[in-house]
Amino acid sequence: MLSRSGLICLSGALRRYICSLPTSEPKAPFMRTEVPGPESKKLINEMETIHQATSVKFFANYEKSFGNYLVDADGNNLLDVYTQISSLPLGYNHPELIETARENRFLTCSVSRPALGGYPRTDFVQILKNSLGQVAPKGLRHVQAMLCGTSANENAIKTAFIHYQTRKRGGKLPSKEDMESCMDNEIPGSPNLCVLGFRGSFHGRSLGMLSITRSKAIHKVDIPALKWPVANFPRYLYPLDENKKYNEEQDKKCLEEVAKLIDEGKQKGNEVAALIVEPIQCEGGDHHASPAFFRGLQKVCENKGVYFIVDEVQTGGGICGTFWVHEQWGLPTPPDFVTFSKKLLTGGYYYKDSLRVNEPYRIYNTWMGEPTKLVLLEKIVQVIKRDQLVQKAKNVGNDLLAELKNLEKCYPHLLKNSRGLGTLCSFDMPNPTIRDKFLNTAINLGLHIGGCGDSTIRFRPALIFEGKHLETTINLLESAFEKMKTFDIDFTDDF
Amino acid sequence: MLSRSGLICLSGALRRYICSLPTSEPKAPFMRTEVPGPESKKLINEMETIHQATSVKFFANYEKSFGNYLVDADGNNLLDVYTQISSLPLGYNHPELIETARENRFLTCSVSRPALGGYPRTDFVQILKNSLGQVAPKGLRHVQAMLCGTSANENAIKTAFIHYQTRKRGGKLPSKEDMESCMDNEIPGSPNLCVLGFRGSFHGRSLGMLSITRSKAIHKVDIPALKWPVANFPRYLYPLDENKKYNEEQDKKCLEEVAKLIDEGKQKGNEVAALIVEPIQCEGGDHHASPAFFRGLQKVCENKGVYFIVDEVQTGGGICGTFWVHEQWGLPTPPDFVTFSKKLLTGGYYYKDSLRVNEPYRIYNTWMGEPTKLVLLEKIVQVIKRDQLVQKAKNVGNDLLAELKNLEKCYPHLLKNSRGLGTLCSFDMPNPTIRDKFLNTAINLGLHIGGCGDSTIRFRPALIFEGKHLETTINLLESAFEKMKTFDIDFTDDF
Repeated sequence: MLSRSGLICLSGALRRYICSLPTSEPKAPFMRTEVPGPESKKLINEMETIHQATSVKFFANYEKSFGNYLVDADGNNLLDVYTQISSLPLGYNHPELIETARENRFLTCSVSRPALGGYPRTDFVQILKNSLGQVAPKGLRHVQAMLCGTSANENAIKTAFIHYQTRKRGGKLPSKEDMESCMDNEIPGSPNLCVLGFRGSFHGRSLGMLSITRSKAIHKVDIPALKWPVANFPRYLYPLDENKKYNEEQDKKCLEEVAKLIDEGKQKGNEVAALIVEPIQCEGGDHHASPAFFRGLQKVCENKGVYFIVDEVQTGGGICGTFWVHEQWGLPTPPDFVTFSKKLLTGGYYYKDSLRVNEPYRIYNTWMGEPTKLVLLEKIVQVIKRDQLVQKAKNVGNDLLAELKNLEKCYPHLLKNSRGLGTLCSFDMPNPTIRDKFLNTAINLGLHIGGCGDSTIRFRPALIFEGKHLETTINLLESAFEKMKTFDIDFTDDF
Repeated sequence: MLSRSGLICLSGALRRYICSLPTSEPKAPFMRTEVPGPESKKLINEMETIHQATSVKFFANYEKSFGNYLVDADGNNLLDVYTQISSLPLGYNHPELIETARENRFLTCSVSRPALGGYPRTDFVQILKNSLGQVAPKGLRHVQAMLCGTSANENAIKTAFIHYQTRKRGGKLPSKEDMESCMDNEIPGSPNLCVLGFRGSFHGRSLGMLSITRSKAIHKVDIPALKWPVANFPRYLYPLDENKKYNEEQDKKCLEEVAKLIDEGKQKGNEVAALIVEPIQCEGGDHHASPAFFRGLQKVCENKGVYFIVDEVQTGGGICGTFWVHEQWGLPTPPDFVTFSKKLLTGGYYYKDSLRVNEPYRIYNTWMGEPTKLVLLEKIVQVIKRDQLVQKAKNVGNDLLAELKNLEKCYPHLLKNSRGLGTLCSFDMPNPTIRDKFLNTAINLGLHIGGCGDSTIRFRPALIFEGKHLETTINLLESAFEKMKTFDIDFTDDF
């Protein structure tokens, strides 16, 4: 016998069947209007009456989007190789994720959200093991869930500070004086410690993370900042194989500067407790550095007693051909912390066993992450492993990079410095104006790509980006480059 | 004809029907084991192998919980007047929210999460209007969505800084010098501005917010802090009607100190750009202040050119008998910013029209909130309005406070200073040990309450907490107080 709630449930199922979601991609992009089209523009104006919309590119119809294809408000069907700033591992409306989102545990996670630090779900440990546990970097079995990349970095850094001070106390808990002085933000309880970051880096936009972030002035200007030190990150010349000596010199100079800054901090009473670095400086312009550089960094950190934090918020999740980029560095021991978000859906960080915080309520907040994300991540990890999507990203990424290098030969005035790991590829254009013009040209041909740094184009496709999508991508890029030739562009800049 | 995906969908519906979720509350709590019971303890041990569990109280079975009743891993059925640190407006598994979570738009929001700053959903403006728009404080029609309370405060403060500096420049955009110097965290681009907060306050746990938060040393110790000023928040004597003069003197002294600190900051070149205050200092121990105090604060801020930020993360959402507590203050104009999270499911802040940030990418991040929360909030707001839940919280809250005052008379050695707005009620106990003992006694009788400050008990029920739940609550409190009498407790402290 069906109860009333049972009937509601079945009629709900029929309603869902009638308004069913898409289950296949179009063969190619198709355009109905310019982007943003009239419907997007109308919605932008409407949005401005209640919520800022200054950075909105277009509105999207997520119920019509599927796989690598994003449908906008005007019915334009775009091949999306930017995927919500690289945060959709399996593209749009993956059928297995839709099924997962219909499960009771997903429903209850959604409508009865736990304060995870105090009252986790009975299945939470299993969900953790099946999701973040399955993709833990070698040697880092402990993980802390958080809501986003910024809170991941904030809390990894807080943990580093706690351990730095604990180490100085010979393992003891904070003293009475520590506990009292910290309530006035004074030493010794609020110590003069800092985090060393790099020029060109991006680690988030909270007041703390913005003090380390140095990607763009518009992110930072007018906001007070901690006077924390900054080191230079290597800036390589391309192609790499023709510039080995110069690039090795870059590594060496940067490593020396890092060591010097740490020593200076100690002398000035402003000790560096941790160093944070991205494997690829993504927001700052897709700046790469060599495995040798990162091995050197870890060594400097170890020698100086500084915690080594690797921010894999944008590079993690398989897009670079391994689940974590630091796995490609040949490190003798794992990093102290590896932070993540974006393609992992949830923020958080892995950390060494020795870096546990044993006292309650030091690393804590109301939500501490979100179990719905982990339930979806469990399925995502299954699909990634079953379909070998990391290896596929590596392979199709190699092809993408080769094609970009070909395009460099055909359009030498428009692109150079093609580089990449997996499908996380990029190239530089002559200047910001030309780059922005190119982004606009490409999207109006049906290809949604991203920009970063001043003049860089970045690819951030989903892990389901395959050979056929690559073919379409390259065709559209070629059309876009051809179209660029027809514009009245000033190419006199030295490029 | 049913397609394969249609069949999957229907079989999913049947599966859901078979494992159906609860639809009614038990008549009263019932206990099977102590809390945490053996199953919770087992899960805590298991969790420790992958994720810190130092602050876990017990594991909960969210698929068996309903309304005001939370079922733990051991089958104990608890009346929950703490509701995930006050973050469940309609209790557990509200049937209308479950229905909402089964809609296509919820599914697509979940599995195809947009980067809201760039590519909002076509229905996003409507969802915003139907959710946050419906409960906007009077005079504040603009809202910014964020993920949590900390990021809400962080970004409201960033906006205040941006406007403070813009005002100093006579409305001009940042200069070339500003843009260059901020990349080195140096003035003028990274200005020496600060935020004035209060002793006993809680505004989050990022490095920035922790510098303003002064609720507990364990939150702050070992973490470097910005040297920002702090003022005293009134500390009232109860009952209020017998201590009018003393309490008014408190207001006056605190307001004078605020004005003095702002002036001193200006003299020392460390200007106060904004003041942030909670209507009730919740984490710090449920410290109340009078409407006159807050009117005075706003006036000082206006006179001194300091932005007035009201942090309603814990007080907002209707629990206090109005949707926002600042609506009870009789302010002549709205606050500059009102921040929220918890019962609103999403973080964010309302702000005055004049405080828009007009340049893109200054207030921005990847996710900028989460549409699934707004879809649920749309339904929550409908239910709250339809069922007049804010008025009901006011009424049942009055009864709760009256009952607590009665209990004060019966157990004068155990509780005093009963206070509250709506159902956000609290009382003080003699010391932390007795308070913690009481929390443990109550939960083992089936009542899950919270603590705050050093020795305070706080009530944070859902908005569906009614007379019958109040009756059960009071009976359980009485039993708990009676049981406390049987323990060997040292009551010699002056209380």
